[in-house]
Amino acid sequence: MTTHTLESLNSASPADFTAALGDIFEHSPWVAEAVSAQRPFATLAALHEAMTQAVRTAPADAQLALIKAHPDLAGKAARAGTLTADSVSEQVSAGLDRLNEAEYSRFHELNNAYRAKFGFPFIVSVRRHTKDSILRQFERRLAHSAADERETAIAEIFRIAALRLDLRVQAPDKLKLSGRLSTHVLDVHAGKPAEGVGIELFEISDSGEARLLVRGVTNRDGRTDAPLIAERPVPIGIYELRFAVAPYYAARGLALADPPFLNVVPIRFAVSEPEGHYHVPLVMSPWSYSTYRGS
Amino acid sequence: MTTHTLESLNSASPADFTAALGDIFEHSPWVAEAVSAQRPFATLAALHEAMTQAVRTAPADAQLALIKAHPDLAGKAARAGTLTADSVSEQVSAGLDRLNEAEYSRFHELNNAYRAKFGFPFIVSVRRHTKDSILRQFERRLAHSAADERETAIAEIFRIAALRLDLRVQAPDKLKLSGRLSTHVLDVHAGKPAEGVGIELFEISDSGEARLLVRGVTNRDGRTDAPLIAERPVPIGIYELRFAVAPYYAARGLALADPPFLNVVPIRFAVSEPEGHYHVPLVMSPWSYSTYRGS
Amino acid sequence: MTTHTLESLNSASPADFTAALGDIFEHSPWVAEAVSAQRPFATLAALHEAMTQAVRTAPADAQLALIKAHPDLAGKAARAGTLTADSVSEQVSAGLDRLNEAEYSRFHELNNAYRAKFGFPFIVSVRRHTKDSILRQFERRLAHSAADERETAIAEIFRIAALRLDLRVQAPDKLKLSGRLSTHVLDVHAGKPAEGVGIELFEISDSGEARLLVRGVTNRDGRTDAPLIAERPVPIGIYELRFAVAPYYAARGLALADPPFLNVVPIRFAVSEPEGHYHVPLVMSPWSYSTYRGS
Amino acid sequence: MTTHTLESLNSASPADFTAALGDIFEHSPWVAEAVSAQRPFATLAALHEAMTQAVRTAPADAQLALIKAHPDLAGKAARAGTLTADSVSEQVSAGLDRLNEAEYSRFHELNNAYRAKFGFPFIVSVRRHTKDSILRQFERRLAHSAADERETAIAEIFRIAALRLDLRVQAPDKLKLSGRLSTHVLDVHAGKPAEGVGIELFEISDSGEARLLVRGVTNRDGRTDAPLIAERPVPIGIYELRFAVAPYYAARGLALADPPFLNVVPIRFAVSEPEGHYHVPLVMSPWSYSTYRGS
Repeated sequence: MTTHTLESLNSASPADFTAALGDIFEHSPWVAEAVSAQRPFATLAALHEAMTQAVRTAPADAQLALIKAHPDLAGKAARAGTLTADSVSEQVSAGLDRLNEAEYSRFHELNNAYRAKFGFPFIVSVRRHTKDSILRQFERRLAHSAADERETAIAEIFRIAALRLDLRVQAPDKLKLSGRLSTHVLDVHAGKPAEGVGIELFEISDSGEARLLVRGVTNRDGRTDAPLIAERPVPIGIYELRFAVAPYYAARGLALADPPFLNVVPIRFAVSEPEGHYHVPLVMSPWSYSTYRGS
Repeated sequence: MTTHTLESLNSASPADFTAALGDIFEHSPWVAEAVSAQRPFATLAALHEAMTQAVRTAPADAQLALIKAHPDLAGKAARAGTLTADSVSEQVSAGLDRLNEAEYSRFHELNNAYRAKFGFPFIVSVRRHTKDSILRQFERRLAHSAADERETAIAEIFRIAALRLDLRVQAPDKLKLSGRLSTHVLDVHAGKPAEGVGIELFEISDSGEARLLVRGVTNRDGRTDAPLIAERPVPIGIYELRFAVAPYYAARGLALADPPFLNVVPIRFAVSEPEGHYHVPLVMSPWSYSTYRGS
Repeated sequence: MTTHTLESLNSASPADFTAALGDIFEHSPWVAEAVSAQRPFATLAALHEAMTQAVRTAPADAQLALIKAHPDLAGKAARAGTLTADSVSEQVSAGLDRLNEAEYSRFHELNNAYRAKFGFPFIVSVRRHTKDSILRQFERRLAHSAADERETAIAEIFRIAALRLDLRVQAPDKLKLSGRLSTHVLDVHAGKPAEGVGIELFEISDSGEARLLVRGVTNRDGRTDAPLIAERPVPIGIYELRFAVAPYYAARGLALADPPFLNVVPIRFAVSEPEGHYHVPLVMSPWSYSTYRGS
Repeated sequence: MTTHTLESLNSASPADFTAALGDIFEHSPWVAEAVSAQRPFATLAALHEAMTQAVRTAPADAQLALIKAHPDLAGKAARAGTLTADSVSEQVSAGLDRLNEAEYSRFHELNNAYRAKFGFPFIVSVRRHTKDSILRQFERRLAHSAADERETAIAEIFRIAALRLDLRVQAPDKLKLSGRLSTHVLDVHAGKPAEGVGIELFEISDSGEARLLVRGVTNRDGRTDAPLIAERPVPIGIYELRFAVAPYYAARGLALADPPFLNVVPIRFAVSEPEGHYHVPLVMSPWSYSTYRGS
């Protein structure tokens, strides 16, 4: 993927501008074309706003064509390898390339049911979701009216476009697309931040499977050097943090119970706002802990 | 299993007394015989003390014979069905009847190694342990000296005898053999005990498998009507309590995040003192919780 | 004060029955008289219900006379020593005998304003209140309508009667008049109940003065041997528990910061339901603590 | 007080250099003079180190003269107005200008006893202490040996010099003299930082008096815009934070108990490391709270 500066896009020829941003909207370079004459754009937000405005003011059949230009999620095109590069990496981000046969069938059924009811594919900004959360959206949205779904599809397309712009264009401003997940370990036995606590972050599927996302160790301030997730949406879904409490206290020379009352402490929680800040601390002793949604 | 009152045992003929308590010590009715003349016993504790004293003052070869009278854990006798009734129910309590082939082999190896080193079987009061904790004991004790292991074997035999007496004899006193595991759910969003919270207690194996032990619902006081475990030792091992937090708040009409920040909250902890009181409360809101070893 | 059993009251002559319970309603033996023929009463609750029913069905002027039979709170009669014995001990319970001149004047003013507006004295069950809470009630109720205040006065008279019956009559049942205030100290540094923690309970006035009510020390279970307040209403008001945390840890040999981060920990809270159970625990380490309304 | 840059001091004439830093050590310009030839100093730390080295290598009688050049704390010189400007502002920082007669007498007695025993005045870096903590130091140090006290006096003089350098010289580096006291309010009822909570910080004297130091309100992130204390030592002493919890929840429209269970929540704690970071958060609901020493 080539990235551009906003500045270079502002001074590019109309043809180059459209070539650079033609796939921000799936198979629909006409959107880039429509805003080319409005250049220069002072900010990425202004560019995104102009593009969404071009879609909103386009005729209904052009909007519908845009919707229909999107591929099915985890559909035949994905298996056949005929997706756009953007769609591939988006579907990978939510694990749609790792479906088992049952899940693949479920998506297949839902895709068909959705197309049968609405006449266009199901569209969702998958970078904001885990696989289970996509399935839940799918089931809920199948119950909606056609008018509502057309509106929702357009809104999701705007979200997808924003995330694509954010990846492709360097600009002085950032679109408000990123959430953050962080933690902090406080040791109330010693009265200080806990340094050297092993931490693992898992994504938990509805069926209970745990998939390791990040592994880290707390620093002198009781935090990981970088947030666990940052600079992207935190996918809607269920997570589990696991903190290696007993190894930490054993390394400090404490005589623990055998086996220790607390060994690896799991904190299970869900993210519902992909653009939110989730701070999930652990305030612990060898015999107690607490957690809360912090900031 | 026939139970007796201490009173009736005190007034029984010597032969009946020995018949009633002949299997308190495995295949060793001589222990009961030896204390018969000391009757009456005012308490169960006095009876147990007299029996352990009879063993302690017996000749070394009688003690060794007593040790050797015990079966292997999860051994051939268990498979062949030739154990005493007491041994069967004890081994079942720790799940030794539910071993897979790998575990069965592991026990087989350890039994052989132990017998090869010490010349007698490995003895442990299995009602105080989970399967994993027995294996851990096994491995540790293999490294001990023969003298230490003879002492440990005798001490474990006394624990087994106490638990058998407790099951078989009704007396005014109770031996101190029982631990307790309980919980309590406080709702700090509403400022009262949380009524109607679903609770599950699992035993967690070293390999991470969860086996459901008890299921309950909190009452008006935020507690389960009965302790989760009581009137017996709480086996040394790892446990997980799971509290259905989101369903509780949803039933109270709260608008939760979607998915809710906290849904089923797991609290994982270990028991190291089978005769201890473990109170593991949950103090919760939809956005926070804490727990500690209480009493 | 003479106490009676419900049984003896049931079998007493009508005259003795009225003599025994003639002052349950202030200067109004007619209430006892009215229910004498309904004997026997199976429970204290039935007796109380019958007496309140007698008042409710009495003519309006009899009800008004009953209301007017009550003395002013902290009024001239109290200073002159002409109150009934019940009224004296009730007013003492809320500290109305310990007013300074400013407070005495405030009560005097409020009494006069209330009588001027409604034509009868202000009645409140003072055993359910602290002095500040009585003053707050006084000010609020002055703004009410006469009809509302007559109803409120009757309701308060029924509460007063219940508390008097409870003190005077021994019966198989208890009226639901009592609240409870208790605490519990858990040491999450050691993982057990904190034994030997000094505790003081203060009543805090609106002006910030602290009046010591109870002093205690935690036992092996981390509790005081008796609840801090029990078997009576917990007066509506503001309280402060003070826990001697640093002395506890110092006595256990811990090296604390100098001065210790936590020394005497104050927990300030209010009671709004005199018949409620207030359990206010302290879950502490040398570097942290938490509290909540428990049960 | 004139401030200088380290650069200008490095290029000043020896006489100007000594004039500028002559009072870093009380009435002892010889210390500045002694290091003048070692210029340039790359950092303030190097300058401080050189000056302390000059004192350490000076003859014993010069060291003693330096010690003796210091005034009594809260002594006659302070009352007479004959202190150096530095000493005045230092003694004011710890409230030594606000003593009542009893305290003044106590200092007078201790000054005399200390001089009588050791032959020189009691020296302590008062910016690191509250009045009560100075008195506690005074009493403890009176029991020490003369040799220990000479060493302690020199160490305190170095601390005083560092704080004076820090105020007077602008340099690329900062000496490690500053502590920090901050707070954070998390609302676990709503699951977010608590905005708009009134906070007061008091210094608490041994006799229980509370002196207001700072008043603030939490911002959108649940913090005060600036730390409560920063860029100076946090004086050793006892503090109380008061959080206006009930007004916060009432402003959010919650129906609270009457009176509210928690109204103004006091957190009382001590600072023992003036250069430490003290983060004292409040994690609260209308019915619970917790705090801990964070970072």
